[in-house]
Amino acid sequence: MAANDVVKLIGLWPSPFVMRPRIALNLKSVAHENFEEIIGNKSDILLKSNPVYKKVPVLLHRNRSICESLIIVEYIDETWTSGPSILPSDPYDRAIARFWGYYVDDKIFPSLSKIAKSWGRDEDALEQAKTAMELMEKAFKDCSKGKDFFNGNQIGYLDIAFGSNVGWIRTLETMHGFTLINDEKTPGLAGWAERFWAHEAVKDVNPSVEKLIEFSHEVFTKPPPSTS
Amino acid sequence: MAANDVVKLIGLWPSPFVMRPRIALNLKSVAHENFEEIIGNKSDILLKSNPVYKKVPVLLHRNRSICESLIIVEYIDETWTSGPSILPSDPYDRAIARFWGYYVDDKIFPSLSKIAKSWGRDEDALEQAKTAMELMEKAFKDCSKGKDFFNGNQIGYLDIAFGSNVGWIRTLETMHGFTLINDEKTPGLAGWAERFWAHEAVKDVNPSVEKLIEFSHEVFTKPPPSTS
Repeated sequence: MAANDVVKLIGLWPSPFVMRPRIALNLKSVAHENFEEIIGNKSDILLKSNPVYKKVPVLLHRNRSICESLIIVEYIDETWTSGPSILPSDPYDRAIARFWGYYVDDKIFPSLSKIAKSWGRDEDALEQAKTAMELMEKAFKDCSKGKDFFNGNQIGYLDIAFGSNVGWIRTLETMHGFTLINDEKTPGLAGWAERFWAHEAVKDVNPSVEKLIEFSHEVFTKPPPSTS
Repeated sequence: MAANDVVKLIGLWPSPFVMRPRIALNLKSVAHENFEEIIGNKSDILLKSNPVYKKVPVLLHRNRSICESLIIVEYIDETWTSGPSILPSDPYDRAIARFWGYYVDDKIFPSLSKIAKSWGRDEDALEQAKTAMELMEKAFKDCSKGKDFFNGNQIGYLDIAFGSNVGWIRTLETMHGFTLINDEKTPGLAGWAERFWAHEAVKDVNPSVEKLIEFSHEVFTKPPPSTS
């Protein structure tokens, strides 16, 4: 492999956004190096390769950098075309996958983040997350058409976009005693989340709930006990 | 044309987001009907076809709806493949176009919106917009490689994504006496904006500055004169 063909991913292990390109690279069987950032101390390589947002993940390939997790996933799909397709082939199915991928970043991740940072106290965020899960349950039914994944028989774009949040969903459920994905309200998602989490391309890159709980204790300030 | 092959776009004329699919449809020479929403009174067809966000634009095609302006632009590009390509063909160039398209929606539109709503008083938003224009100047140089448009010799994805905001940029400049795109700091963008605005696929869908000023007087509340 030529030196400039080395694929490198700048990441941070608890980030669902970083999981996405990792899963996509695994799906395509692309050998790659992981460069792990240190929280609170951005590396020169990160600052140089993503000067606009200064955020992970960044994919380095052929001496160029590609930023924004879902854009990286599309780049991986379009660059390593011999592996399984990540985006659906039909333009309408692609648009729907991109729409819900956008929705995950626009609504679901921000709600989960608020729940995590408020140590489970942000009731509005919790309600938003619950509503979002019901929408995703419907989207799963529409997209999967009775198959195992949003993308059909194989995991794809929307599985990756949404599934990268499953670890944090389970962590918040465990820490704060509510459920977001469950057999009663979101039976389709419940089965899907199990299958996704155990998938060959996912199981080595998904952080465990135990590690994410430990991380939460380290970085999120626990508020004083509620007096109400 | 079969009845379900009619292409319909639900829009609202002052919206830069609505301009995007209109330009894309023009570029591809796709005959289509425009359904104009009334501000403050969402139509049943809008609520039904975009139940998640209830926002324009929505493209209706083959009895299905596609939402989110840049996703619609990609759908148009992938569906009517006989016209000129809207996305670049190279995966890296595509990733860069998508990255800056994301940046336009994440940073530029929100700044312009704050400037418009504050009647030019939001200094932070103005600073952000100026910084963003300098970044876009650099992006133009990198992407256009000396040609007329971000996409090269023809307008494409990023021209559409960013260019749809040129009308509002000119309107805010005219109303509030500052410049965002000018020959001194952003000479590349200054020439590009002229060419884009006069382009065959754009010139009939771009609202005039006069109309946008009138619209601003109607919808944005003018604050009392500053006493500082």
